[in-house]
Amino acid sequence: MKLVVLGAAGRMGRTLVKVVSETEGAALHAALERSGSPALGSDAGMLAGIGEAGVTITDDVDAALDGADGIVDFTVPAVSADIAKRAAERSLVHVIGTTGFEAEANDAILAAADAGATIVKSGNMSLGVNLLAVLVEQAARALGPEAFDIEVLEMHHRHKVDAPSGTALLLGEAAATGRGIALADRSVRVRDGITGPREQGTIGFATLRGGSVVGEHSVILAGEGERIELSHAAGDRTIFARGAIKAALWAKEKPAGLYSMRDVLGLAG
Amino acid sequence: MKLVVLGAAGRMGRTLVKVVSETEGAALHAALERSGSPALGSDAGMLAGIGEAGVTITDDVDAALDGADGIVDFTVPAVSADIAKRAAERSLVHVIGTTGFEAEANDAILAAADAGATIVKSGNMSLGVNLLAVLVEQAARALGPEAFDIEVLEMHHRHKVDAPSGTALLLGEAAATGRGIALADRSVRVRDGITGPREQGTIGFATLRGGSVVGEHSVILAGEGERIELSHAAGDRTIFARGAIKAALWAKEKPAGLYSMRDVLGLAG
Amino acid sequence: MKLVVLGAAGRMGRTLVKVVSETEGAALHAALERSGSPALGSDAGMLAGIGEAGVTITDDVDAALDGADGIVDFTVPAVSADIAKRAAERSLVHVIGTTGFEAEANDAILAAADAGATIVKSGNMSLGVNLLAVLVEQAARALGPEAFDIEVLEMHHRHKVDAPSGTALLLGEAAATGRGIALADRSVRVRDGITGPREQGTIGFATLRGGSVVGEHSVILAGEGERIELSHAAGDRTIFARGAIKAALWAKEKPAGLYSMRDVLGLAG
Amino acid sequence: MKLVVLGAAGRMGRTLVKVVSETEGAALHAALERSGSPALGSDAGMLAGIGEAGVTITDDVDAALDGADGIVDFTVPAVSADIAKRAAERSLVHVIGTTGFEAEANDAILAAADAGATIVKSGNMSLGVNLLAVLVEQAARALGPEAFDIEVLEMHHRHKVDAPSGTALLLGEAAATGRGIALADRSVRVRDGITGPREQGTIGFATLRGGSVVGEHSVILAGEGERIELSHAAGDRTIFARGAIKAALWAKEKPAGLYSMRDVLGLAG
Repeated sequence: MKLVVLGAAGRMGRTLVKVVSETEGAALHAALERSGSPALGSDAGMLAGIGEAGVTITDDVDAALDGADGIVDFTVPAVSADIAKRAAERSLVHVIGTTGFEAEANDAILAAADAGATIVKSGNMSLGVNLLAVLVEQAARALGPEAFDIEVLEMHHRHKVDAPSGTALLLGEAAATGRGIALADRSVRVRDGITGPREQGTIGFATLRGGSVVGEHSVILAGEGERIELSHAAGDRTIFARGAIKAALWAKEKPAGLYSMRDVLGLAG
Repeated sequence: MKLVVLGAAGRMGRTLVKVVSETEGAALHAALERSGSPALGSDAGMLAGIGEAGVTITDDVDAALDGADGIVDFTVPAVSADIAKRAAERSLVHVIGTTGFEAEANDAILAAADAGATIVKSGNMSLGVNLLAVLVEQAARALGPEAFDIEVLEMHHRHKVDAPSGTALLLGEAAATGRGIALADRSVRVRDGITGPREQGTIGFATLRGGSVVGEHSVILAGEGERIELSHAAGDRTIFARGAIKAALWAKEKPAGLYSMRDVLGLAG
Repeated sequence: MKLVVLGAAGRMGRTLVKVVSETEGAALHAALERSGSPALGSDAGMLAGIGEAGVTITDDVDAALDGADGIVDFTVPAVSADIAKRAAERSLVHVIGTTGFEAEANDAILAAADAGATIVKSGNMSLGVNLLAVLVEQAARALGPEAFDIEVLEMHHRHKVDAPSGTALLLGEAAATGRGIALADRSVRVRDGITGPREQGTIGFATLRGGSVVGEHSVILAGEGERIELSHAAGDRTIFARGAIKAALWAKEKPAGLYSMRDVLGLAG
Repeated sequence: MKLVVLGAAGRMGRTLVKVVSETEGAALHAALERSGSPALGSDAGMLAGIGEAGVTITDDVDAALDGADGIVDFTVPAVSADIAKRAAERSLVHVIGTTGFEAEANDAILAAADAGATIVKSGNMSLGVNLLAVLVEQAARALGPEAFDIEVLEMHHRHKVDAPSGTALLLGEAAATGRGIALADRSVRVRDGITGPREQGTIGFATLRGGSVVGEHSVILAGEGERIELSHAAGDRTIFARGAIKAALWAKEKPAGLYSMRDVLGLAG
């Protein structure tokens, strides 16, 4: 599968170039950067630290897409929306790991999926986290609030500036969906001092920070005499690139439309 | 729901009597023991340490079943097969936590389910363990052997005489089902000395023993750069009684037939 | 060793009576309750659920102490102070698990230790927690704040009304002592929203609540590329009684004075 | 502190060059490789991926040591023994992470420490693992075999070819030392099938393999009703280089002699 990497000189772009080169069935077709990038004209493989790849970084989008099978894109919503339109015109696969979409750009993505693009879009491209969210939703549905309390624990490195993590909230949302409740109404974000007993049906969060931890998340369902714990640990940031490339290979055989990582995992309801 | 407890003077029977008394919507209707048991004639509640229950332990099965809604049964296969037949005649719920069934007794259970009994049968009545097995099967299917290695870890108290535990094997079977392989062909039960690299597609087991640990099980799916861990910890043995009573209440509204704990959890495929 | 149990009809007192009966080298000499207790005159073993012990619960302190080797006491500070004085007069061992001491009662304990009592006193009688505190202090000293961040995580059952737990704070104090800082100045009790990066040298706390968890504590030291985790899990409340009886047996051979559980563990600096 | 890195073109050597460049108070003085290495003449920083360092890789040992304060050495025993002798002649610090020493090379190291070298030598240069071993020894001493069972659990990546890991055995040795027993006599390396109950005083091992896990070790002390767990997780291999550089900086102010990482941590008995 001939893939075009967007933002190929950035941190995620270089990781994508590296993972493409290591993945059987995938090949680097072109590498794009914004006009004016100092990386234009460099070899994408050299920048990625994997040796000469024979693909020069360019800002010519049309030339890059000619002959391609798919596009992998961790950029910004406006760029992703524009590229989705081009993917539709050429019936390409478009894997979108970009975050921060608002209504307008989201509508453009939907329109492109209707018009011929095979799009996989997710706020977190890790296979493991997406699987965990599916399992958490089921567990929260099967083990009801009268008997099981749900807690979400996360740990990240000392440089992280917000809490809880976006992924912790995503897992909390999955639990809330399983319980048929709105997370915003039922979440307990901190505990300190005299809190009183735990209120039935709430979803608690706890946050640890320290060292260089890439990202660890656990969802605990604690009942009388037993406890289930569903956890994910990320060891490095390449897992997002791996998930995106796997999504691209999966989408190659699929009809146009908008898909999620749950579809890629074969776990969509 | 009026419940009959079998083996009411034994360790599990007394726990069942206690949990019935604590469960909203459940009431102790009768308490059975084998003929000749020294407990015949005693109050079932006194034996269970919850005070007078007003139910005398008896060996008169027919009298015990008269007017009952359901039976909870952790005994032996021959007894369970006989009781299932009677449950069919009276269209009762029959929850079977008995283990060690062979073909003949199993056939009798199936026949009773066809003939009018509403039977829930499982080798492990814990809600948490049954849920975990469902989640493990899905995770093993979604995360294939070329990328994710599966390991099963368990810890039990120092008195346990066999390894791995039955529940560890049950979880290994769930993983093997998800992968579409036979566990017996692909399990690695021990590692010591020069083992060589891990063989792709195998399912590894590891066993810890110590202290008074009631039972802890983890299934790990370890890939490049990320890891999923799905765990269950039992704090006390009442969880099997709780699961059985929950199964009885669930089955009350169901047509005759044979069900598993996955049905009770709403997670059957 | 002939032991007197105080508050023998209460929850901890009955647990003490049971653990004494199970401990080699220990025997129940007398069982005390306050004047007016409805338990006076009952057999201490029957109340503890271990069968007839041949020891009647009494409120006659002098008679109870006659011929005894030691006293185990989880009561209130005023009672413990009075008993310590009597222990000094008779050169007895006095194990004090009472909490909530203020200056006056504390001084009385010190005076009794000077005057002939062999006193072991601790706010938490669990061997494991006391050991953990010693290890945490050392780890915090060895791995300095410029490289390692310290976090304290705890989980308790859904009925607990305050956070963090007393034991979490005790472990935080041990870490602060190892670092030579005041915990109150450097602790981060909650994190929510935009927190900014972790501040070097702080000690963070995180709290989980759910199910029937008796008590779990972890102290994490997270550095660049590695992490140490020191944890304790309590499975039931008998561990405090076990620790107290072990302390009594240990103290039998020791000269009068005031000891801590660190001394019992052989880990005092 | 002016440091000489041995084997500077190898994997560990390049990591050392990188960590030296990031460590306050440390500077790269010279970079050695064996005669004939194709890396001779290259810039050590370029090879390490940190940009020009201004230090050319050389095989001239005497020139490299001129003006240096210390040497960091993860090579082979014969090389380490030779370098130790030169370190003694020049009163240098010599940090030795080399493994596989036999009697002759070991004696040479001891002689060099007597003759003026300040040597820090350890089979595992990670601060965390060395600290953990100290804590494990204390815990094993404080919590005796009649009440607490010791288990050692480790997990490594799928490519590891032996079990248990060297570090798991090192931790088992620490536990055995604390207990005053010989590990070889009392270790239980595998459990499968009918094992019988756990034998008091043994030290059990369990091994997990999968994914890309760098190395995780836990020592569990499990008693009646409570459990201590002491764990280390390595996130990347730079921790060995960090530990070695920290050892070098620590040793700069110390008199000649042979030291261990326990001395560096301030935890030597």
